[in-house]
Amino acid sequence: MYKRVRVVLENGDVFEGVLIPPTQFSDPDVVVLKLRNGYNVGLRKSRIKEMVDLGEVSGGQPAPPQIPKLEGEKVWLLATGGTILSRVDYVTGGVYPTMSVEYLFEILGGLDAPVVAEQVAAKFSEDMTPAVWSQIAARVGEAFRRGARGVVVLHGTDTMHYTAAALAFAFRSAPGPIALVGAQRSSDRPSTDAVLNLKAAIATAARAPFAESVVVMHKASGDGVIAVHRGTRVRKMHTSRRDAFQSINALPLAEYHVDQNLLKVIAEEYRERGALEYTDRFEEAVALVKFFPGMHPRMLDVLLEMGVKGVVIEGTGFGHVGEQLLPSVKRLVDAGVVVAMASQTLYGRVNLYVYRRGRELLSLGVVPLEDMLPEAAYAKMSWALANFKREEVPRVLTTPYAYEMSPRSDPTSFGT
Amino acid sequence: MYKRVRVVLENGDVFEGVLIPPTQFSDPDVVVLKLRNGYNVGLRKSRIKEMVDLGEVSGGQPAPPQIPKLEGEKVWLLATGGTILSRVDYVTGGVYPTMSVEYLFEILGGLDAPVVAEQVAAKFSEDMTPAVWSQIAARVGEAFRRGARGVVVLHGTDTMHYTAAALAFAFRSAPGPIALVGAQRSSDRPSTDAVLNLKAAIATAARAPFAESVVVMHKASGDGVIAVHRGTRVRKMHTSRRDAFQSINALPLAEYHVDQNLLKVIAEEYRERGALEYTDRFEEAVALVKFFPGMHPRMLDVLLEMGVKGVVIEGTGFGHVGEQLLPSVKRLVDAGVVVAMASQTLYGRVNLYVYRRGRELLSLGVVPLEDMLPEAAYAKMSWALANFKREEVPRVLTTPYAYEMSPRSDPTSFGT
Ligand SMILES: N[C@@H](CC(=O)O)C(=O)O
Ligand SMILES: N[C@@H](CC(=O)O)C(=O)O
Repeated sequence: MYKRVRVVLENGDVFEGVLIPPTQFSDPDVVVLKLRNGYNVGLRKSRIKEMVDLGEVSGGQPAPPQIPKLEGEKVWLLATGGTILSRVDYVTGGVYPTMSVEYLFEILGGLDAPVVAEQVAAKFSEDMTPAVWSQIAARVGEAFRRGARGVVVLHGTDTMHYTAAALAFAFRSAPGPIALVGAQRSSDRPSTDAVLNLKAAIATAARAPFAESVVVMHKASGDGVIAVHRGTRVRKMHTSRRDAFQSINALPLAEYHVDQNLLKVIAEEYRERGALEYTDRFEEAVALVKFFPGMHPRMLDVLLEMGVKGVVIEGTGFGHVGEQLLPSVKRLVDAGVVVAMASQTLYGRVNLYVYRRGRELLSLGVVPLEDMLPEAAYAKMSWALANFKREEVPRVLTTPYAYEMSPRSDPTSFGT
Repeated sequence: MYKRVRVVLENGDVFEGVLIPPTQFSDPDVVVLKLRNGYNVGLRKSRIKEMVDLGEVSGGQPAPPQIPKLEGEKVWLLATGGTILSRVDYVTGGVYPTMSVEYLFEILGGLDAPVVAEQVAAKFSEDMTPAVWSQIAARVGEAFRRGARGVVVLHGTDTMHYTAAALAFAFRSAPGPIALVGAQRSSDRPSTDAVLNLKAAIATAARAPFAESVVVMHKASGDGVIAVHRGTRVRKMHTSRRDAFQSINALPLAEYHVDQNLLKVIAEEYRERGALEYTDRFEEAVALVKFFPGMHPRMLDVLLEMGVKGVVIEGTGFGHVGEQLLPSVKRLVDAGVVVAMASQTLYGRVNLYVYRRGRELLSLGVVPLEDMLPEAAYAKMSWALANFKREEVPRVLTTPYAYEMSPRSDPTSFGT
């Protein structure tokens, strides 16, 4: 039960709203109100002159926290950080890491699978690197070796799609899905999307017939359906919406219907649960470079100086760059750097045969990446360079390994 | 009238399709067939053994070319290049520049305004630079000074949105719209989108009540409606579809309904036709840098060595970069470089107040760009640095000049 209150501050300001009950992670000196407009406000107790009880409210509020019982080792939760493991500071409005899995249990009720939880990292995901992908891959592999039926990776949303793609390539075959999950609103907010996303991720890990690396996040701004996107086909497309993650050039792999607790597979084809076969090696000397009109060649030349081994260029349209860059591209390729082309349009397919510039790039040895997302391409480059011989990499890049490219892009995922 | 034919080649291959009539720009040694699947195939005459006439077909074919009559100087067409001024080589499938405005007239019928046409450049748009934006701005300004009611800029689609944004900032006020237009399929293809896009652009230039820089391209894959996007709010979002251009974080400014020859304004607010006030100055020492996980700081440090004056970073989520970049960001800002933050999610709004990383970036002096597209931000940076004193630039960047940002993003433009 929640209480509606009116708070009068020393300075005369008046706030009316629903009192948010404190958790063990809240600031004890602060009272938090959920205002009618949906925003929360934190009021320092020392500033409060008067607080008037306006009666109880019900409905639309989250269930009180329940610690789930651990009954086995069916699904493993690996925590890496992110908003899903953070709390909001209602005074500053800032979001701070808590990064503890127990914290998450405090706000989580009614799991549909027994879980084991472990901490792998404690980062916001802008601080992920290929080296951290390696750590995560190793821990996911370990979880499967120790009998996990599926693994849930709690991850910041900013770069979740990069990590999801990296894991998709790292795990050539697995006994179950790797479900990355996060939240757009920290888990202690009444409006959080963490709880439903996490339930859907656990349901996916436990029950899905497929064994791929996926991103499990809200499908729409409402709460009814959670999308299960292929890790290689998804992108964070909005800074703040719950349905920020969208599959590009492909439909989502599956959907979780919250009310029916139903996991519905959408894709016609998927990789089934199988033996464990994975790598935890990623190359760090890789770059993703977005072209822009007038881009100075020095921005490519520096990559050679840095000893980069692979570059994914995000070109314009079918996969183009300005003519001023051609000599630098040539120098990179001649030095043995793998240079591959994705498109900054995101949707559609690179085609270097249509325009002269495309053919020039092809003749320099640039590898066209079909309908692969630039972010997935970056992860694939990092994986390919670490696990194949240099001369095999172009062929590896243009061969589908994890549904990251297709002979024909699914047109249903573009536009309205 | 078109003819259906069966062509048998020397090598035994057989093709059936509609014979495409040659134009003065076609290769005289090649016969072009439109196949049932919609693709065109070019067959060298020397390889043809037999050609059987299968009778006439009608319907769904483009009208024969008509040279429009020039009756005044109402609308100016400025040609800069791109596919709209190219022809396809049916043998190689490549698209080659023709770049002649007369060529365009050859395929264009039934204009609804008298036009004057001029050649400003002859480039594919991946070769545009801020220096070329300056040339285009100067010529647009000249057209207005010489009485144009509106200006149509024929432009490659790859970077059309960058140029459209640049012109939006360059023209603080104008007597009419600047309508950028291009084609996803070269103008000599039966399936070209050039003709309708161009008609809509000319109608917009002649009749629109607004005087903004806009991108005029197909709204959907069908032919019924052409969208008029704000130059600062639009992005090429698909490599090949006719409706590749989509407004982001805003609705299109207007729509042109082909059947009714009707221009329907959608935006509630717009800049009206007014006096001519513009600049043709753009700064070239500006960079757009997309962050990716594990990005090496050297990729920012090189910008300082290059003497760049402004950098737009495409961060993750609300506008973040990895901690490894913070010292480089600080060095840039300390050296007087303007560093601004947009988001690679494209949709949504940068917010540097939510997370610690955001606040760190703010405290280093990074300028948050609200809901501005990275491409528009790059153009704005180039414009701002060339036209304002260094110390004014941060304030200029965060002040709306051409509907490039709004206090609240229009949520109707995201998702389905
Ligand atoms: N910046 C945070 C945002 C989030 O978790 O949603 C992160 O990616 O870790
Ligand atoms: N690459 C070409 C494509 C086009 O015009 O559509 C250009 O941007 O000029």
